[in-house]
Amino acid sequence: MPYNVAQKLIQSHLVSGRMIPGEEIGLKIDQTLTQDATGTMVMLELEAMGLDRAKTEASCQYVDHNIIQEDSKNPDDHLFLLSATRRFGLYFSRPGNGVSHPVHMQRLAKPGKTLLGSDSHTCAIGCMGMLAMGAGGIDVAMAIAGEPFYVKMPKIWGIKLTGKLPDWVSAKDVILELLRRYDVKGGVGKIIEYYGPGLKHLSAMDRHVIANMGAELGATGTVFPSDGEIKRFLKSQGREDDWIELVADEGAEYDLHDEIDLSSLVPLIAKPSSPGNVVPVEEVAGEPIYQAYIGSSANPGYRDFAVAAEIVKGKKVASGVSFDINPSSRQMLTDLVKNGHIASLLSAGARLHQAGCNGCIGMGQAPATGRNSLRTTPRNFPGRSGTREDSVFLCSPETAAASALTGKITDPRTLDMDYPRINEPKEPTVDVELLDPPLPLEEARKVQLEKGPNIASIPEMDELPDELEVPILLKMGDNISTDEILAGGARVLPYRSNLPKISQFAFEIIDDTYYERAMKTKEQGGHAIVGGFNYGQGSSREHAALAPRYLGLRVVLVKDFARIHWQNLVNFGVLPLTFANESDYDLLNQGDTIKITNLKAQIQNGREVTIHHKESGKQLKMNHALSERQVDIMLKGGLINWVKARQKKS
Amino acid sequence: MPYNVAQKLIQSHLVSGRMIPGEEIGLKIDQTLTQDATGTMVMLELEAMGLDRAKTEASCQYVDHNIIQEDSKNPDDHLFLLSATRRFGLYFSRPGNGVSHPVHMQRLAKPGKTLLGSDSHTCAIGCMGMLAMGAGGIDVAMAIAGEPFYVKMPKIWGIKLTGKLPDWVSAKDVILELLRRYDVKGGVGKIIEYYGPGLKHLSAMDRHVIANMGAELGATGTVFPSDGEIKRFLKSQGREDDWIELVADEGAEYDLHDEIDLSSLVPLIAKPSSPGNVVPVEEVAGEPIYQAYIGSSANPGYRDFAVAAEIVKGKKVASGVSFDINPSSRQMLTDLVKNGHIASLLSAGARLHQAGCNGCIGMGQAPATGRNSLRTTPRNFPGRSGTREDSVFLCSPETAAASALTGKITDPRTLDMDYPRINEPKEPTVDVELLDPPLPLEEARKVQLEKGPNIASIPEMDELPDELEVPILLKMGDNISTDEILAGGARVLPYRSNLPKISQFAFEIIDDTYYERAMKTKEQGGHAIVGGFNYGQGSSREHAALAPRYLGLRVVLVKDFARIHWQNLVNFGVLPLTFANESDYDLLNQGDTIKITNLKAQIQNGREVTIHHKESGKQLKMNHALSERQVDIMLKGGLINWVKARQKKS
Repeated sequence: MPYNVAQKLIQSHLVSGRMIPGEEIGLKIDQTLTQDATGTMVMLELEAMGLDRAKTEASCQYVDHNIIQEDSKNPDDHLFLLSATRRFGLYFSRPGNGVSHPVHMQRLAKPGKTLLGSDSHTCAIGCMGMLAMGAGGIDVAMAIAGEPFYVKMPKIWGIKLTGKLPDWVSAKDVILELLRRYDVKGGVGKIIEYYGPGLKHLSAMDRHVIANMGAELGATGTVFPSDGEIKRFLKSQGREDDWIELVADEGAEYDLHDEIDLSSLVPLIAKPSSPGNVVPVEEVAGEPIYQAYIGSSANPGYRDFAVAAEIVKGKKVASGVSFDINPSSRQMLTDLVKNGHIASLLSAGARLHQAGCNGCIGMGQAPATGRNSLRTTPRNFPGRSGTREDSVFLCSPETAAASALTGKITDPRTLDMDYPRINEPKEPTVDVELLDPPLPLEEARKVQLEKGPNIASIPEMDELPDELEVPILLKMGDNISTDEILAGGARVLPYRSNLPKISQFAFEIIDDTYYERAMKTKEQGGHAIVGGFNYGQGSSREHAALAPRYLGLRVVLVKDFARIHWQNLVNFGVLPLTFANESDYDLLNQGDTIKITNLKAQIQNGREVTIHHKESGKQLKMNHALSERQVDIMLKGGLINWVKARQKKS
Repeated sequence: MPYNVAQKLIQSHLVSGRMIPGEEIGLKIDQTLTQDATGTMVMLELEAMGLDRAKTEASCQYVDHNIIQEDSKNPDDHLFLLSATRRFGLYFSRPGNGVSHPVHMQRLAKPGKTLLGSDSHTCAIGCMGMLAMGAGGIDVAMAIAGEPFYVKMPKIWGIKLTGKLPDWVSAKDVILELLRRYDVKGGVGKIIEYYGPGLKHLSAMDRHVIANMGAELGATGTVFPSDGEIKRFLKSQGREDDWIELVADEGAEYDLHDEIDLSSLVPLIAKPSSPGNVVPVEEVAGEPIYQAYIGSSANPGYRDFAVAAEIVKGKKVASGVSFDINPSSRQMLTDLVKNGHIASLLSAGARLHQAGCNGCIGMGQAPATGRNSLRTTPRNFPGRSGTREDSVFLCSPETAAASALTGKITDPRTLDMDYPRINEPKEPTVDVELLDPPLPLEEARKVQLEKGPNIASIPEMDELPDELEVPILLKMGDNISTDEILAGGARVLPYRSNLPKISQFAFEIIDDTYYERAMKTKEQGGHAIVGGFNYGQGSSREHAALAPRYLGLRVVLVKDFARIHWQNLVNFGVLPLTFANESDYDLLNQGDTIKITNLKAQIQNGREVTIHHKESGKQLKMNHALSERQVDIMLKGGLINWVKARQKKS
């Protein structure tokens, strides 16, 4: 049977399940990627599991998110991550090496392999003929420990590319076109696979741009074939031996279809405040801007910076405009320096920042209140820039650079100049030595983890008790998001490597007495919470499950769950139950007590769990959706305990 | 009578007083410099004064301190400053142009002129044959409005330089040697003037390094002659016409004397946590480091970066060391890029930051807890780096770069290489266009100030009443610092352009009920406070006088005052009184009431003010030290009112 590229990647890594859309499959993971904002917890999880040595082919810890360092918390985290990579046998990418995705592509990505990353834009590496997916931190920790990654088999969505991009239109406009057509939910449950004759005009880094923002479509992954262009790219990085060809078989089929004629595209822009809010640039041209921002994993290529440099060369940025350049990797910045592009940008008035994620995730470069900011980044959710009342547009480097010169949103085709065609350096700088390689095993075993005062190990967690009698501490309505369960932002994020501290913010937005009330239940059998539909929607942050669990949460009773949060609850040993009769939701009140007996047998023997509601005296029927594997995880009190038990056995 | 350079500068700008050390003199100010952390309040003061047009020859507003932009407050401030410079006829140096001191030197400094700046390192520009002094914000606002600057005539301290610096020893080691000899109070009440045959080996930027850290000696100013080297420097900046010769007359005398034989110096380092804690580098060699930091106004020259680049060229920074490069100006960064030095630094593993003050004032790049940080910056006070438990050393770029390679404090003379001698670019980049020039008057008058939501105008303040009956809201002990009166730090600093908001932090460290209690007195005649000796020591921040005044503070009764805070109280119309009999301090209690009648006549007619203490029924004798000019300022309710009244008259 002829396979497409995505099917080949899945088939060659399948350890359980069948390739039938919607069925759970288990995949062997070859490589992992963690960044510092999620990686500290992953390293603490590896410590809690008692891992001796990473079992993947290559796992790299990047430091790209929290690199401003306003106080000791970030640098303490960096040193902790360095010590953890040395202990567990991981690569360490130093602060300043750049954004994880382009650096991983340059140094470690290999066609035909799988990559799991604790960053939603991990899908960018699909540009290399890999199956690359974002996931929660503990899923990545499990992959580092050699466990498969479980996911529902997605549909494969073939997008045929034809034609060639016109002048002033680039890869960013391709993915903006797809967002214009399908909006931010268009890729849910799908892997997007690009193919067709249009591919030959798209460089590996152009494909990175397109694959990266598959995340904004909600896709499970994005896949490109590994063809001659990928061979050229790997050769330029001194890694020709890592190349294999990986293309769809003749006659391969896709579950879904669409086509983009590249020659028909125009410069596009996503208006505030959603990546799916896409219109042609000319529709909003003339709006005054405060900022033009080049960089991020959504436009990380040499050409993305070089084309901006050529556009502003010999000219000056408009007064009052902040023209921010955020290099995506140190080695690429070195080439931009050597080839004169950085001098062109500086002379025009650019502000050059260190290589990293920076303003893309709101770490610096916030725009002025209510003023327009044009960015080549992947997301423009409200407030993500750091400014509460922001107005962020997403566009190509061409559009951003043109607008920096005029001080207003400008269709680059209206500039009075020829389109600068960029030649990538034939022999780009290759910065092998600044990626610290894994230590040899014997040396690694001598390494002590270096924990600054803000870094706390994950406390041990107990097994699931066979009988629970617990109070309901919160009763909530529908659509509670993980942002409400555990907020992000500059006030909370610095504590991401300190579970006891970050737990103080749990449910704070909903009820700021929760923390104190929960703490009282922690040593006394724990507590339950009640919610409505779509409980736990939004961000995948695992702290939203881990922190309440730390405070004694044992069982969640809701009408239904959002998928990722449900998985996170299971992973941390919190029992997720849904009402068999939704009207039972009305029976339960905050402060009531529920009792569950014979719990272990109940979840092992079927899908039903009966709970006793003290106040009404009624027996309520609840359902669980745990697989056999997950039942075992739940009995052990979560994934960390489960892994430890297996290690003890083997 | 033969004059030295400092005397010539003073004499040519003297508008009142005599050049007798200790006597108050008034000086005409030709140029001013403001930076964004102090400048927003200066601009609000100009607005409150009703200024139409700057009366100086050149005034420039720099944006170099708050350029991280974690939220909208900083960029809103930048846009406000841009609008204010356009309104009042100032130069505007865009964010990213670099640190005020080197940029001012490159673009605006002129031998023979005076410069007043709302930044303590303004003294750096003394390297150009100028009299350059730091001062409080409103003093600079007054200078912009054409008023003289009043200061006590300092002693002139001649330091004769002989010989030539050995390899691996540079300008930073010269000023560290002076700090080693005299510590951080050694320059108080003095202008340091360098002369002698050693000068001919020190470039203009080397002299900048030495003049800059005169601030760390507590000096009123540092002066170098304007000689052929200054002519060369100005020519290289395309400003040869701005050069005049300014050297000491034959036979000129100094009040104080010392001599440094440059050839005898060795690499020096200031240990934590004072710039005066200086030892030879070899004494602390071998200590492991977390960070090596190049940049700041204390080592802003092309050579300071280039020599570091040559030292690390072709090598790699030790694993775990953060090697931070902070360019001091955009135009100099452009040359470092063009000449290959930035590529050398990046390839070695440097983190390249935008041009500005950055980590020098704790805005980013904080070191890890308790780990050693080697910096070329001017100050290492505890916690200034952003890390509470920091360990910061001050040294030359040579020492910092050598230590980055080895991962421990390293005397650069022990490196196995020849000393790289740096040639400055013959035709350096000159970035005229990015310094927005003053608008023509008619255009300027049409400009509206652009105030973001966090920027509040300074409210109008009333005149001194002739009778006061007010409660004592605080009774404090000795040595109360301005940090206790109004804290700095990341929590408070963002509100520096919002007086009502920042006032909420007044005296918070001493008594957090002060704000609420003071607010109640605001509309009911105000209040008094009582203190001991050395009241208002430390930082010169004017908010420490302005905020309590805004909350109703009318009179301060203490044993004695620290000089600058006393001046700030006068400037903002708060009456500073000292006890004639110090034992009267014991009579007064928090909550008591004092009454002063016939107040205007009392301060006009002598040095004595009698107050009635209600609780004891006693009449207490107090003294004031106001000059005639200051009495007038006090009667009007402060400098802003005083200027407005004069403008109305003229």
